[in-house]
Amino acid sequence: MFSKEMYELGAHSSVIREIFEYAKKRTEVVGKENIFDFSIGNPSVPAPEIVNETIKKLVDTVPSTELHGYTSAVGDNSVREAIAGYLNKTYGTSFRKENFYMTVGAAASLTITLTALHEEGDEVIILAPFFPEYRVFAEKAGMKPVIVLSDEKTLLPDFAAIENAITEHTKAVIINSPNNPSGVVLDEECVKTLSALLEKKQKEFGKPIFIISDEPYRELVYGNVKVPFMTKYYDNTIVCYSFSKSLSLPGERIGYILVPDEAASSGELFKAVCGAGRALGYVCAPALFQFVIKECLGKTSDISVYEKNRDLLIKTAERLGFSCAKPDGAFYLFMKSPEKDAAAFCEKAKKYELLFVPSDSFGFPGYVRIAYCVSTEMIEKAIPAFEKLAKEYF
Amino acid sequence: MFSKEMYELGAHSSVIREIFEYAKKRTEVVGKENIFDFSIGNPSVPAPEIVNETIKKLVDTVPSTELHGYTSAVGDNSVREAIAGYLNKTYGTSFRKENFYMTVGAAASLTITLTALHEEGDEVIILAPFFPEYRVFAEKAGMKPVIVLSDEKTLLPDFAAIENAITEHTKAVIINSPNNPSGVVLDEECVKTLSALLEKKQKEFGKPIFIISDEPYRELVYGNVKVPFMTKYYDNTIVCYSFSKSLSLPGERIGYILVPDEAASSGELFKAVCGAGRALGYVCAPALFQFVIKECLGKTSDISVYEKNRDLLIKTAERLGFSCAKPDGAFYLFMKSPEKDAAAFCEKAKKYELLFVPSDSFGFPGYVRIAYCVSTEMIEKAIPAFEKLAKEYF
Repeated sequence: MFSKEMYELGAHSSVIREIFEYAKKRTEVVGKENIFDFSIGNPSVPAPEIVNETIKKLVDTVPSTELHGYTSAVGDNSVREAIAGYLNKTYGTSFRKENFYMTVGAAASLTITLTALHEEGDEVIILAPFFPEYRVFAEKAGMKPVIVLSDEKTLLPDFAAIENAITEHTKAVIINSPNNPSGVVLDEECVKTLSALLEKKQKEFGKPIFIISDEPYRELVYGNVKVPFMTKYYDNTIVCYSFSKSLSLPGERIGYILVPDEAASSGELFKAVCGAGRALGYVCAPALFQFVIKECLGKTSDISVYEKNRDLLIKTAERLGFSCAKPDGAFYLFMKSPEKDAAAFCEKAKKYELLFVPSDSFGFPGYVRIAYCVSTEMIEKAIPAFEKLAKEYF
Repeated sequence: MFSKEMYELGAHSSVIREIFEYAKKRTEVVGKENIFDFSIGNPSVPAPEIVNETIKKLVDTVPSTELHGYTSAVGDNSVREAIAGYLNKTYGTSFRKENFYMTVGAAASLTITLTALHEEGDEVIILAPFFPEYRVFAEKAGMKPVIVLSDEKTLLPDFAAIENAITEHTKAVIINSPNNPSGVVLDEECVKTLSALLEKKQKEFGKPIFIISDEPYRELVYGNVKVPFMTKYYDNTIVCYSFSKSLSLPGERIGYILVPDEAASSGELFKAVCGAGRALGYVCAPALFQFVIKECLGKTSDISVYEKNRDLLIKTAERLGFSCAKPDGAFYLFMKSPEKDAAAFCEKAKKYELLFVPSDSFGFPGYVRIAYCVSTEMIEKAIPAFEKLAKEYF
């Protein structure tokens, strides 16, 4: 009567969503101030003021049919030009507007890219831990997801395991740095090693293997950490970007796909991206927000809040005996579960109203994800709960 | 290296897009005021003032993380409730918020619905003339499009032909009233006949056959014309709506899918819709515009401009000897080509800088689509060109 597969996807919400619902119910019982919900990756700091100022300016000055009208399917030319200019200035690249396809956020960037790349029998390598929807997107696009676990200690890619996983069917490797859920950033050495490995494998199989670089957290890094810009290291890179996290606009759905000239058959590949966007029903990216982000390139929300939260959380966790992955970016702390079963650990944490996401849903057992895109005050109030939880183990 | 199918879709833009590009080039040669471009279905009247007023009010009063944050995947509850309430008041229905899934416009509504319904071997009946992307969306969702020509004289459904086309594989029939490209509206008698036919066929094959009612032009009707609300006539109706045309917001991508309780396995079907939205990468409909349309339900742009344009065009066309389909709604006049080959007729029209879309791309030969979502002034200036064109034939 209808698609069983789609029904299953719609009926079984993610673990994160389940915890979200639990939090809502529990809030009714004990009150919002007594729940320490670290489960959701929803930006907690407002969009920078320039966002709302730009919205009002555009509404007051641009004719309605122009502001709210269709843009080209690829996006408005002046917007694409501005993005190219901003990236070139920031990363020393030489993109042109023709390299950019504006999208309805990172998820759309990924489904369109995977659909554009897909040929019969394709496999896509996903490095665990990973954002759970990667699997859903890959399967819907007709690709077989091949999960490769990262190094258990560093949570960086396990290059030997990746090499073993690559076959003649490998179309692409998805990378996500800074990583959701681990917060780990791939440094330059790591990026170079991965690029060299893929170059070697491309030669071996005589075909391109793409890196799909999912970068919604690109600007969310702390201290002196730098995120290497992937297209500078590996030609067959397709960048999937979203302004959701950097500008705290997750509900507005605005991002882009970048197909650099260096990619194999770049022009045709870009057309395949256009075709996939068309076939999936993405007519154009939301017009107003295309024009908004054009005025906000290089700006971010006040990410110092996240850095403060990260520092406070990691100090607390380590003081109490927990160990964590190197939390260089995004807004997640990936904390090792002190017992083998992370889900059981999360259940114990619930006794103290601490809500974490067990890492199994990210394809990597033995950890919990602690989203610190919350108020610093909440973390401060949660410290006694962390202390009680630690006492159960150490 | 990438999907050939998607490449083809991206590389071969639609006929409408080609005419659009021709218009741009021609404008450079003869000047904008001398080109009479009737090719594009882009609203020409501004959004009602309440749209921009609401945007500014929301931006000034709602906290940023709430206004621009993720909504539920199905859409914000208060928005869905408001839509249910508006429809119930207007059409005497009894929808609840649970019947609505907010989408990124009508194209997304259609791709999600088709993907949700799809089972191996499915066919979907498309009534010609039709919006060309229906075929693209159906094929991408895995459904075989079965094209059924409408009655040549009335451009209303040819019920005998539909009956012949229905097989055990028929999953759905897409209807679009008011119609793009013909402007024809299905009246109550027509809707009742179609419903009775499908009821009969459902019994015969012992399975539901859905009507997918694509309704972006629902409010764009003229004179005393009424558009029957489909769910009141046929239980297995899924409504795909968009605010693009009624509120002149085509670039903002906001609409919904309505799965009424009366539809077969309504609850499960709704979950399949959720699953399809998820798998295609639609995380949520743009948040700001969800809240905007909540305040604008029942409002429309100034459609009296379209009515005036329609009246002027049809008067001119008929005076000169052309004949047209009954233009009750949308903003298209479907004019019979005075020679068999509508494309040849369009080429002749180009000599007088008149740009029409030949109807072949809508799956129905022998007509041209004249989009009258233009300024009345342009139509007035185009009349001498219409007169010269007519002289070549009559």
